[in-house]
Amino acid sequence: MDKAHIPDMATLVSEQYVPYWHESEEVIVIGAGFAGLAAATEAHNAGASVTVIEKMKAPGGNSIISDGGIAAAGTPMQQSAGIHDTPDLMYSDMLRAGLGLNHPALVRKVATRSTETFLWSRDYLGVPYMDRIDQFGGHSVPRCYTAENVSGSTIIRCQVAKLRELGVTMRMQTTLRRFVLDSAGAVCGVAVREGYDHKSPQSGTDRFIRATRGVVLATGGFGADVHFRTAQDPRLTQEIDSTNTPFATAEALIEALRIQAMPLHLSHIQLGPWASPDEKGFGDGPRFADYIVFQYGVVVSPTTSARFVNELADRKTVADAILEVGRPCIGIADSKAVEQSGWSIDRGIEKGVVKVFNHLSELASHYGLDDTALASTMERFNGHIEGKIDTEFDKPILTEARPLIHPPFFGMRLWPKVHHTMGGVQINARGQVIDLEGYPIGRLYAAGEATGGIHGACRLGSCAITECLVFGRIAGRNAATERP
Amino acid sequence: MDKAHIPDMATLVSEQYVPYWHESEEVIVIGAGFAGLAAATEAHNAGASVTVIEKMKAPGGNSIISDGGIAAAGTPMQQSAGIHDTPDLMYSDMLRAGLGLNHPALVRKVATRSTETFLWSRDYLGVPYMDRIDQFGGHSVPRCYTAENVSGSTIIRCQVAKLRELGVTMRMQTTLRRFVLDSAGAVCGVAVREGYDHKSPQSGTDRFIRATRGVVLATGGFGADVHFRTAQDPRLTQEIDSTNTPFATAEALIEALRIQAMPLHLSHIQLGPWASPDEKGFGDGPRFADYIVFQYGVVVSPTTSARFVNELADRKTVADAILEVGRPCIGIADSKAVEQSGWSIDRGIEKGVVKVFNHLSELASHYGLDDTALASTMERFNGHIEGKIDTEFDKPILTEARPLIHPPFFGMRLWPKVHHTMGGVQINARGQVIDLEGYPIGRLYAAGEATGGIHGACRLGSCAITECLVFGRIAGRNAATERP
Repeated sequence: MDKAHIPDMATLVSEQYVPYWHESEEVIVIGAGFAGLAAATEAHNAGASVTVIEKMKAPGGNSIISDGGIAAAGTPMQQSAGIHDTPDLMYSDMLRAGLGLNHPALVRKVATRSTETFLWSRDYLGVPYMDRIDQFGGHSVPRCYTAENVSGSTIIRCQVAKLRELGVTMRMQTTLRRFVLDSAGAVCGVAVREGYDHKSPQSGTDRFIRATRGVVLATGGFGADVHFRTAQDPRLTQEIDSTNTPFATAEALIEALRIQAMPLHLSHIQLGPWASPDEKGFGDGPRFADYIVFQYGVVVSPTTSARFVNELADRKTVADAILEVGRPCIGIADSKAVEQSGWSIDRGIEKGVVKVFNHLSELASHYGLDDTALASTMERFNGHIEGKIDTEFDKPILTEARPLIHPPFFGMRLWPKVHHTMGGVQINARGQVIDLEGYPIGRLYAAGEATGGIHGACRLGSCAITECLVFGRIAGRNAATERP
Repeated sequence: MDKAHIPDMATLVSEQYVPYWHESEEVIVIGAGFAGLAAATEAHNAGASVTVIEKMKAPGGNSIISDGGIAAAGTPMQQSAGIHDTPDLMYSDMLRAGLGLNHPALVRKVATRSTETFLWSRDYLGVPYMDRIDQFGGHSVPRCYTAENVSGSTIIRCQVAKLRELGVTMRMQTTLRRFVLDSAGAVCGVAVREGYDHKSPQSGTDRFIRATRGVVLATGGFGADVHFRTAQDPRLTQEIDSTNTPFATAEALIEALRIQAMPLHLSHIQLGPWASPDEKGFGDGPRFADYIVFQYGVVVSPTTSARFVNELADRKTVADAILEVGRPCIGIADSKAVEQSGWSIDRGIEKGVVKVFNHLSELASHYGLDDTALASTMERFNGHIEGKIDTEFDKPILTEARPLIHPPFFGMRLWPKVHHTMGGVQINARGQVIDLEGYPIGRLYAAGEATGGIHGACRLGSCAITECLVFGRIAGRNAATERP
């Protein structure tokens, strides 16, 4: 096709500018992470022809580098382990962390469908999960299941294999340029660029793909988009690292806003409190901090050598507390805590992110802490463990927790990194994108981090994968059952 | 003109759909509140022909029902009163309350130009101010000046008189329908409805007005728009009252978003902590609560009969604390505090919003407080006043504050109401509206509550009028000096 025939993308929104459709599908899914791949699977299984477009060279997006933890309330595994949990409890945990900004109907859907969706991922997709249930900050009970290899890539691999088995096309290096609207204002297709290469964004060829049933936006968050995120929160300059891939950017979200999607909660940007300033990106430190320090150990201020927060509070609370201290804080655990956790922290130690000390005084000296103040902090905390109640910061004391008196001791510096963007486009409980005036945009669905409203001001750890799969499936099925 | 010639407003954005311009001005200002009227004055004084459109029957918008308090740092009056204040201090107060979400360059502009703008309002517009300087919550020093009659209407009256003197047209009952963009994407005019009547919104006639230099959006906030605000914060249903006029709605903001203005901080919606559930709207209670209780008195929980917050903290802190108590709390002051404040609270008493008691025990009994617990609360607080330091909640003890021991005592129930929407469209320090990709939208300016970014997560009391006048003037002047 002659490129000159394609109108300027800056003005293209209406179908009247589309010279012709290069091809036609029933459902187009944009983005090949957890949400997009779940949407494609359901859309196919609902009988629609589906194509997935993905800007990168391989599927997985930012999902592939997540830690693969998924929350579900009321599972058979919880029952076997004697953990009493319900969707109601998960719902109220999410609302409390979200400071009430969450859209209740969406949270209800995520919580209610969490167990069925988790079992679908295990039994239908074949995702192998580790034989453990963890409790992350802000959750009232252990309800977090972790994919093998502690990696989202385990889930993505199973999702991709399933789509291949079903015969669904996934086109890599294909990026969204514009949504195209018909004369009634409904989405009737997309302009894409094929052969896209992030190293030379002008490369590739523009094409128009018609969608006769629906389009699902599942393009993730904008945590790595310094321009967009600093508009929303000027503190999050390029000086603040991110756990995301560098490709977690806002261009698809911007396209949705261009066609009048209602923006929600864009300034609520989550910082991961378990990140290390001594490595780039997500790294290996969070394993130690999130699964061991926050659960069994302590975080102390470099100024006072004392605790200052409930280490098992939600991410916003802990990250804000560390930022308020103003310098990297020190996470501390002992060998018994590592053993209790069942996790290996070898990679963190090899990288030098997690340090090993035979005595607490060595640890104090290494991190510039006050030896006596630290000893007193540890003594008080060990008292809380023995008393089974944290009278200082109200941290839940886990049943298997033991006083931190077993050398070697482990330490890690903590400084937050941009991790998740709670904001995005508004959807309703059917996964339809809502416009500025409160009406669904015809034939446009969305799921995952591209949407806002589910997590409110603060997402709880392990709720994102649940959300992506629950709403990916809802969006895919509903897009597939639109009348052509 | 035949209405049939006017294209469907649902699709009209581009100039190509405008059949013809009914008229042409150099600058069009949308909204006749503090910001819009300031913009019109400056645009006129910069030599442009200006028209102001306003949807209501009279100018003033929501500004007219404000309490007329304006903050300025480093004024001659402060110097005479021995108050050391600087724009730097005001800047850091605003950033602290805004939780760092504020756009620093905009805050800097407001603080730096606060004194010059306040003096402009007094000396050029002729606004009469009371001979007092108050300190509101979150401000480090007294820097708030109050227009006579404690009402924004005093300022609006002077602004309107000045515009009449200058010969600037103000068209009432004229509402924005659409911004119109030229082929380069710049705003080249507006579609309006004349003869608009909010009681029958379909009434009136559509007209197209060309703007050869620029358009200023100054349409205020959306605090009374239940649909728009519940999308952003689902807690703010119609069950929550608002201090705004019922016409503080989002339709003009939506038009700006439709042409790709960057939305900022829409979910940051301020609740006034000084509001009474015993009257509708802003009412007369806030005078007593904000100027007397918060400054000299105490707020106690109905559950514990004890204080629970620094009453002079910023609005978000105090409102959140009251909401967390979960029931209306009780504000208490004595006759000495009322006398110290210099304010009359007669209207609040006449309405029954503020109650009078000869003994604290009567007050306790009326509000269902525990007599002994309340007595102990008052005794502790009186100790803080005598010691000049609040060792419980760190409330600043004002120099003239005296122990609360002088009957009669005054009480008022407190329950927050929606007061201000911190969010809106992004602007830069020149007042230009910024689009989703970070570029100014050609010839479009904005000022006042329609913009986001200046107050971040929480606006300090009395900073809104400063902001409206500072950025109204900047926007008006810059719009007027665009090349036609």
